[in-house]
This record gives sequence, C-alpha cells and structure tokens, in this order.
Amino acid sequence: MGGDGGPAVIVPAAIRFLSNNPDAELVLYGLEDELLKHFPNRDPLGIDRCRVQYSSQVVSDQESPSAALRHKQDSSMWLALQSVAQGSAGACISGGNTGALMAMGLKLLGISEGIDRPAICTALPRQEGRCYLLDAGANVDCSAQQLQQFALMATALVSALEQIAQPPCALLNIGKERIKGNKVVKEAAELLAANSILNYTGFIEADDLLRGGIEIVICDGFVGNVTLKAIEGAARMILEHLMLAKSSMQPSLKPALAKSPEADLSVPSGLESEGVYAGLRQAFDPGQFNGAILLGLNAVVIKSHGSADKAGYCGALERAAQAHQADVTGQVARYLKNYMAQA
Amino acid sequence: MGGDGGPAVIVPAAIRFLSNNPDAELVLYGLEDELLKHFPNRDPLGIDRCRVQYSSQVVSDQESPSAALRHKQDSSMWLALQSVAQGSAGACISGGNTGALMAMGLKLLGISEGIDRPAICTALPRQEGRCYLLDAGANVDCSAQQLQQFALMATALVSALEQIAQPPCALLNIGKERIKGNKVVKEAAELLAANSILNYTGFIEADDLLRGGIEIVICDGFVGNVTLKAIEGAARMILEHLMLAKSSMQPSLKPALAKSPEADLSVPSGLESEGVYAGLRQAFDPGQFNGAILLGLNAVVIKSHGSADKAGYCGALERAAQAHQADVTGQVARYLKNYMAQA
Repeated sequence: MGGDGGPAVIVPAAIRFLSNNPDAELVLYGLEDELLKHFPNRDPLGIDRCRVQYSSQVVSDQESPSAALRHKQDSSMWLALQSVAQGSAGACISGGNTGALMAMGLKLLGISEGIDRPAICTALPRQEGRCYLLDAGANVDCSAQQLQQFALMATALVSALEQIAQPPCALLNIGKERIKGNKVVKEAAELLAANSILNYTGFIEADDLLRGGIEIVICDGFVGNVTLKAIEGAARMILEHLMLAKSSMQPSLKPALAKSPEADLSVPSGLESEGVYAGLRQAFDPGQFNGAILLGLNAVVIKSHGSADKAGYCGALERAAQAHQADVTGQVARYLKNYMAQA
Repeated sequence: MGGDGGPAVIVPAAIRFLSNNPDAELVLYGLEDELLKHFPNRDPLGIDRCRVQYSSQVVSDQESPSAALRHKQDSSMWLALQSVAQGSAGACISGGNTGALMAMGLKLLGISEGIDRPAICTALPRQEGRCYLLDAGANVDCSAQQLQQFALMATALVSALEQIAQPPCALLNIGKERIKGNKVVKEAAELLAANSILNYTGFIEADDLLRGGIEIVICDGFVGNVTLKAIEGAARMILEHLMLAKSSMQPSLKPALAKSPEADLSVPSGLESEGVYAGLRQAFDPGQFNGAILLGLNAVVIKSHGSADKAGYCGALERAAQAHQADVTGQVARYLKNYMAQA
C-alpha cells in the first residue's frame, strides 16, 4: 500500500518481477479493493506465483512509529513483516512509512546481536561501482561505537552482495585531514582504523560520493539523510533545466530537420535515447539503485523510495531477492559475532 | 595568493572587476614575483585603481589556523585583513585557507557583539531567487542558541542585500514534521519560532534547497558543508555525463544535419549556447554565486571557492563590494543589538 503510487505501481512491478524471476514467489498485502483493481480483470489468480493477503488497515506516512506499532497490527505492513517473522516469506519490501517499518521490524523480527540500533543502507551510482551509504536516516544522533557497528554491518552486506572480502570503508567528513570533523567523527575514525575486520580508508568528502568504485561510506542518519536529499534535489534541478532547454530547443530544430526525412526520425530519437539523456538515465536508473536495506534486523527488509515508479519498485524487489539469496542477514550476524569475539 | 589558480586567476579577475566598477579600488597582497608575472609587462602601475603590497609569506591550505595565526603575520592573508582593520580598505577577499582566514579575521577584526562564533554564509542558485545557507563549515558542533544567532545575522545580511524587511528563514532538517530531527534542531525550532525579529517558516529538506525564491536556511557547519559538497558533486557528475554524451552524440547527428546548410549552423550553436547547456550554465554561474561571507566579523570578509576561475573570483569581488556598500556589518550589529535589547 506504500509509496506515492501505492498498488497502482506495486502490482505491475510485482508482475514484472515475477516474469523476470521464474523461481520467485510473492505475497502482496493490502486492502482488498485497492489491490484487486490493479490486477488484470481484478483477478490475482491469473498471475503465476503471486498471492494476495488482505489487511483491514494501512499505515499512513503521517503516523508516528509508536502509534503505528500500537494501533496498526492488521495493516499490510505489519502482516508482511509477520509473514517473514513466521518464516512463510524470506524478505519484506515496503514503499511506506520508514519509521513505522523500522519500529515494526524491530518488534516482529528483532535486532542483530551486537548492535544498538539498525541502520538504513542505500546504494548510490558510481561509474565503476556503487557507494553504499549508511545511515540514511534511521538514527539522527549516533555515537562513535554506533558508527563502527554500521561499518561492520555494511562490510558484511557488501562482502555478501559483491563478493569482496574487505570492501573499502570511509567516514563522511568535511575534510580529509585528521583535524577535520566533529567529536564523534574523530572518535569513530580511531575505532575504524583500529578494527581489523574493516578496510578503513579514511575520510571522504561529499563531493566525492559519486566517484570511484565500490565503497562503503559511514555517517549518522541526520547527515546521511540530508546528503541523499541534497544529491536528489541537485539532480532533479539539473534535469528540470535540461527538460526546459530541450523543449525550448526542439521547435527551432524542427524546420531544419523537416528537410531531411531521415533526420526527422533519427535525431529526436537520438536525443531521447542514445544521446544526452541516455547516460544520465542509466546512471540514475531507479531499477539499479532503488531499495534501501534496513540493516541489523533479523531478516531482509527493503524500503523502496516513496516516489519509485514501476521500474524502481521492481528494482527494490530485485534488491530483496539478492539480499536474501546472498544470506545478508546471516553474514551480518557472523561479522558481528566475529567482532564481539575479538573485542 | 589563495585558491587553486592563485594570482594567475586573481590578477586577471581583479583587472576585470576594476573595469566593471569605475569607483572601486583594489590592493593585491602577495609575493612580489608571483604577483608581478601576471600583470601585463609585469607592471601593476599600468592598471588604474590597482595597488600591490608585497608580503614575505603565504598561508598554505594545509596550515592549521592556530599555526597560521602564530607564524604567518607577514602573509598576504594577514596583511589584507590588517588593512581592513586599520581602515585603509573596506573589505577583504581571499581564495585561501578558510580556517586561517576565520582565525585571523577574529584576531584582527573582532567579532560582532551578541554572537558566540561567526558563520560562513553561501548563496545557492534558485530559479526565482537564491538560498542563503549557513553555516557552511565554520562550526562543526552548534548549540540551538548559535543556530538562532546565525538566523539573526543572515536576516540582517539578506535584508541589507535584497531589500526585504523579513526574509523567510527555515531550518534544515530530515523531515517537515515537528517530531523530526535531532535534539539541537528541535530546540532551535522553538527558539526561531519565538523570535519576533525572524520570519521563521519551519523545516526544509535538502531536496528543496534549490527550489523557490529568496530564503535563508540554517544548519550547523558539519551538515552545511556536507550538503554543499553533495550538491557540487552531484552537479559535476551529471555535467560530466552530459559532456560524455554530447561528444558521443555529435558524430551521429552530423550526417542528417549535413543535408541542410542552415541546420549545420543552427543546431550545433543551438546545442552549445541557446539550448541544453545555457540554462544550466546560467543557473550555476560562478560569477553569480561564488563568494561566501564570513558573517559575524566586524568587517566584510569574503571567501572565494578554491576552484574559482576568473569569472568566479570576479564574482567574489562583486559580492564584497555589494556587502560593503549595503553596510552588511552595520546591519548585523543593529539586528543583534535589537535582539539583545528584547531578550
């Protein structure tokens, strides 16, 4: 039921995901009428490996986590998490209220041993890999010890997903020099540098987040959330400028192009798909990057961006399947246990 | 001497600024040989209203503020600030070490009465105005009271520069709802809402920083610095993609366009100057937006971005002239006095 598009986005994304993943099974949770109207002929039975389970409630975006916990135990979110807790599903995906998802996840699935609080880990596009940034907003105030726990969990996640034994791990800061940063970041730098499980590479500045290869970047949830939204806002502003420029450019292109029949076909499509925008679309492909993982719960829980479209939501489903298949939850537990044995 | 380009950028920018501002006078401080080689015929006397003053030292980017304070009292930075302190110049502009500039500014110019620490205020482009963001990096840990002081200083600055009595002022946060944010941000929200000098409009999220009209946005220096660099990095990444796409697109455009003689002239120039890139270039014009103000010193001190080119540095000089002419320093002092009288 979650996300700006709700079942209008999720049902078609689910159908596409099932056709791309012949071994996968999905259960969709939601209000009966809302779900049914997005199935062909209002009939989920026609879709192979897809089941529906109806809930009587929905968690709204405005709801506080504690209110949702108390009053929404027959919501689609609660029931989906419960099915994972009971072992009838392997992972839960939601586009809804992040705070409520985290609170219900903690209640129903429990927390990995050795951490204070779970964190949200999101992947950002890079030309030669991706940047795994956490915490993306679950914990506004963090201790240095918590930042170290995030680094351990992300190292476990990335080693499982990308098959790298010790992925590089950096701390987000306002400069590269040792003297830079606030008290918590400086203290975290010492902890990370001394931790032999981690491949700590030092400070990274925010203008380098989208450069390089595979890398983990650690920060508190306030900074992480602001950073992600700043990148999103800048990208959107630039794309809006491009769209405006493109729409004002096309009329002036038309007279010249009309003289060549091929040009009429080839140039607009060149602009649309092969040219200026294709690289960008690929770089920001929501099918590649949507789906943040709630790291530190005792099962895979994936949060889809509220504004995700069908391709984006389908990407979040792929993330969940990959994380489940790579046994990310088990890997996180092993890394934390290993650390506790050393400490 | 500061910035990536040093005098090779600053001297030509100074010459351009003087020709654009027939009433302005400039004094350039730096190493004799470095300065002279960028003047036509190595002769500053040929440039009207421009003087040079030689220093024996330069503050490097790696230098700690305290070391610079102690050991660099014959540097270009120190001498330039000293000339403002002694009243022989109205404002100081530097592309150099920000921490050293702040430390020397505090020592030589002093701090506005009623604040704990100065802040760095930078302007971001918006379609219908600009966003004045502070603190951009001077204070990594801030109290709610300090955030309120930043809001008062920025309100004074923007009222002086933009002739608006009570410019809207928002707090950067990870959500718009009252329950969102860390302890300091929540406490600052109460202070700002209760302050009758301010036009407090509530929380703003980082994806809205580049939207809307004239607005002040308050945050601590860690968050502000990361936010600015995240925007910069995202913009650079997208522009790099566009340049790549453009260079790979043009050959495929050529055959179609070659058939129309007009098209050959109009389309590439349409792409280059009127079309896709022009709006972007204007939006991010460094001549419009370079030059952050060190707000809370007892004189106008402007920090140019290290990577500024000639147009960018010239923009920083314009910012300094505007801030001096609008008596920003006096306005800040009046607003703080007014607040202290009420408190």
